[in-house]
Amino acid sequence: MKGRQLLMIPGPIEFTPEVLRAMGMSTTSHVAPDFIQVFGQALEQLRQVFLCPHGQPFVIAGSGTLAMDIAAANLIEPGDQALVVNTGYFSDRFATILERYGAAVTQVQAPSIGDAPPLEAVEAALKANTYKLMTITHVDTSTAVGVDLQSLAALGQNQGALVVVDGVCSVAGEEMHQEAWGIDLALTASQKAIGVPPGLALLVAGPRAMEAFRRRKSPVGNYYADWKEWLPIMEAYQAGRPSYFGTPPVNLIWALNVSLGQVLEEGMEARFARHRRLSEAFKAAITALGLKQVPVSPNRAATTLTAPYYPQGVGPELLGRANAAGAILAGGLHPAIKGQYFRVGHMGAVSASDILATIGAIEQGLAQSGYKFEPGIGLAAAQSILTQ
Amino acid sequence: MKGRQLLMIPGPIEFTPEVLRAMGMSTTSHVAPDFIQVFGQALEQLRQVFLCPHGQPFVIAGSGTLAMDIAAANLIEPGDQALVVNTGYFSDRFATILERYGAAVTQVQAPSIGDAPPLEAVEAALKANTYKLMTITHVDTSTAVGVDLQSLAALGQNQGALVVVDGVCSVAGEEMHQEAWGIDLALTASQKAIGVPPGLALLVAGPRAMEAFRRRKSPVGNYYADWKEWLPIMEAYQAGRPSYFGTPPVNLIWALNVSLGQVLEEGMEARFARHRRLSEAFKAAITALGLKQVPVSPNRAATTLTAPYYPQGVGPELLGRANAAGAILAGGLHPAIKGQYFRVGHMGAVSASDILATIGAIEQGLAQSGYKFEPGIGLAAAQSILTQ
Repeated sequence: MKGRQLLMIPGPIEFTPEVLRAMGMSTTSHVAPDFIQVFGQALEQLRQVFLCPHGQPFVIAGSGTLAMDIAAANLIEPGDQALVVNTGYFSDRFATILERYGAAVTQVQAPSIGDAPPLEAVEAALKANTYKLMTITHVDTSTAVGVDLQSLAALGQNQGALVVVDGVCSVAGEEMHQEAWGIDLALTASQKAIGVPPGLALLVAGPRAMEAFRRRKSPVGNYYADWKEWLPIMEAYQAGRPSYFGTPPVNLIWALNVSLGQVLEEGMEARFARHRRLSEAFKAAITALGLKQVPVSPNRAATTLTAPYYPQGVGPELLGRANAAGAILAGGLHPAIKGQYFRVGHMGAVSASDILATIGAIEQGLAQSGYKFEPGIGLAAAQSILTQ
Repeated sequence: MKGRQLLMIPGPIEFTPEVLRAMGMSTTSHVAPDFIQVFGQALEQLRQVFLCPHGQPFVIAGSGTLAMDIAAANLIEPGDQALVVNTGYFSDRFATILERYGAAVTQVQAPSIGDAPPLEAVEAALKANTYKLMTITHVDTSTAVGVDLQSLAALGQNQGALVVVDGVCSVAGEEMHQEAWGIDLALTASQKAIGVPPGLALLVAGPRAMEAFRRRKSPVGNYYADWKEWLPIMEAYQAGRPSYFGTPPVNLIWALNVSLGQVLEEGMEARFARHRRLSEAFKAAITALGLKQVPVSPNRAATTLTAPYYPQGVGPELLGRANAAGAILAGGLHPAIKGQYFRVGHMGAVSASDILATIGAIEQGLAQSGYKFEPGIGLAAAQSILTQ
C-alpha cells in the first residue's frame, strides 16, 4: 500500500507535483520583484482561463464562500433587486449572502432536486421586474447539477441584469466563455478545477460589473471584501509595482501561477473536451453498475463531478470501503437527500487512470456491501469510452 | 551564491523546513479523519500559544486584516462605542474597520510617531465614557512600536470594556498572556511569529467576547466573518466530527499544526526570551552603527522587529544593496515618514546566525552607500550580546 488514496471529492482535488512544489517553496516577500512578476502573470493568466480578456481579476486569501461574499458585498446596495436561479444548496447560500447586504431577493426554483429552473421561467421572472443582478450557479457542488449557462446569461443580458456566475465547481473544467457569453462576474475557488490547494478566492469582473461598483452610492458593508481597497492592489501587481493592503498568500499565488500555466498549456478547448470525456466515461460506469444519479437528465449533469444515489441496500458505509480500496469520495450535501447519495469529483489534473482507479474502488466497495453486479462491468463501460 | 536571500521583513518570515514540507504535502479532504484530527489539534495548540486555556479559537482562510475584520464585525453593533489606543498605521486601520460596522470610535492618539499614548490618557478616556470595547495594537508593524499591553488591558478590564488586541506582529514572539492579562480577544496572521506562510487569519476569543457575540441584537453585517457560521465548524473540528461551511485551507492548517507544535516544544517563556535576546542583539548593532530607531525609547520598542531610520546621506537604495548582500528587508510603511526608515523583522524561527547575516548585509549596503562607519562594529555589538 502506498498509504495514500486518490482524492476524488469535488474539491480539494488531486494537484500536480509542480503545484505542490510551488506550495512548499521558501516564501518570499509579497513585494519582492520576482513575486510581483508572478502575481501579475497570474492575474493575466486568470483573464485567459476565464476567457474574459477585458475583465478585472481579483485574487484574495479566502474560500469560495468569500468569493461569493465579495461579489455580493461590492455589487449590492441596500434595496437592490436580485434574482437567484436556484439549483440547490449553493444557490440558497447566494440568496442568503445577497440578503445580508440588503438585496430584495427573488428566486426561481428548480422544479425538483437534481433539476434546474426552465429557461422560460427565468425569462418570465426577469421580465416581471427590474433586477440589478441575477446569480447563476454554473455547477451546484451539492447535487452535480449543471445549467445551460450560455442561455441563462443571455436572458440576463437581454433584460439588463448584471450576470453573476458562481463558477466554484466549474471554472477551468466546465465550458465557460465569460466575455463571449455576457457574464459580468465569474468567481471560483482555488481547490476546484483550477487546481491549487484551498485558500484563494478568485474573481474576474467585467466592465459592467466594475462600472456598477464605481456608481455605488453607499460604502461596501464588508471591509475585507471591499474592491476600493483591493482594486489598486490588483492594478499595482498588474503594472509590476509593489503595493500593500493585506499580505497576499504568497505560496498559494505562486502555485496558482504554476497551475494556470498548466491549464493554458493544455488549452481551454482541449481541457473542456477532456473533462467531458472523463465525465462521460465515469457516468457510463455508474450507469452500467445500475446506480442512478441526482441530476434528472444527462443535460442537467455537470462534467466536473458525478452524484450517484446509493443502490438499494447500500448506504454511506460505501465511502469507507471505497476509501480503503484507494479513493476518497464525498458524501451527500443537499440536506433533503444527504444520506441517499455520494459525490465524486473528476476535474483539474484528473487522468483516465484516476477515473479507472476510482471506479475500481467503488466496485470493490459495492461488492463488500453485498450489492450484486458483474465485477468489472463499470470499468469496462468506462474503458469503452476512454479507448475511443 | 545560493540564489536565495534571508527573508527578514516583518512577515512573511523565514519558515522551518518542516512547515514548508507540510505546505507541499499532497492535499487531503477537509473531512478526512487525519485532517480533522490535525485541525482539532491546531485549535487546541492555539489556545496554548495564546495562553488562553478557556478561549475559543478561530482559524479562517484570509489575511491578518481579515482577522481584524472578523473581530470588529462580530463584536460591534451599530451605535456601539469603541476606544482605539492609537500607535500608528494599524490602529488607524482598526478604527476604520470598527466604523465600517457602525461603531462610534474615540481614539487616544500617541503624542508622536514612534510613541504610544500614556496610560493616564487611556485611563482618562475610559473613565470619560462607557465603551463596549477597546482595541490595542500590541506591536505596530509600521513603526515597530510595542505597548505596555498588560497595563493597558488591565485598564480596559477595570472599566468594563472588552479588550481586543491586534497581535498580528506579536503573538508567539512578543510576551502576551491572553487569559491572565484579561484580554478578551487576540488575533494574528499566520505569516508572523507563529511561523506559517500567509493565508490564515487566527483569533482566540475569551468567554466575555463570546458572550458579547451571543447577546447581539442585530445580525453580523459581514457574511464570511460571521461566527454564527464558523463557531459550529470550530466546535466540530475540536470534537473530531466532520463539518462544512467554507472549505478550510488544508495545507496551511496542516502547516499551522506543525508550526504550533514547534512553538510549544520550545516553550512560550523560552520563546519570548529568545525574541528579547535576538532583538536586543540586533538593536545593539543598529545603535553601534549610528542609526536611530522610530520608537522613541527602548521601552516603546517591539522585540519582533526593528525600525531604523536611514542615516544621513542614505536612503531606500540601501534595501536593494542589503538584498544583493543576502537579506530582504522592508521599506517604511507609515505614510508620514515612509521614505525615511526601513524595517527588519526578527521573529519566529529566526536564529542568531540569521541576525548576524542580516547585520552583515546591512553593513555591506551602508558601505556601498558611502556611509562612514567601522566595518564589523554592528556585528561585534550584536555578538557581544549573543555570546552572553
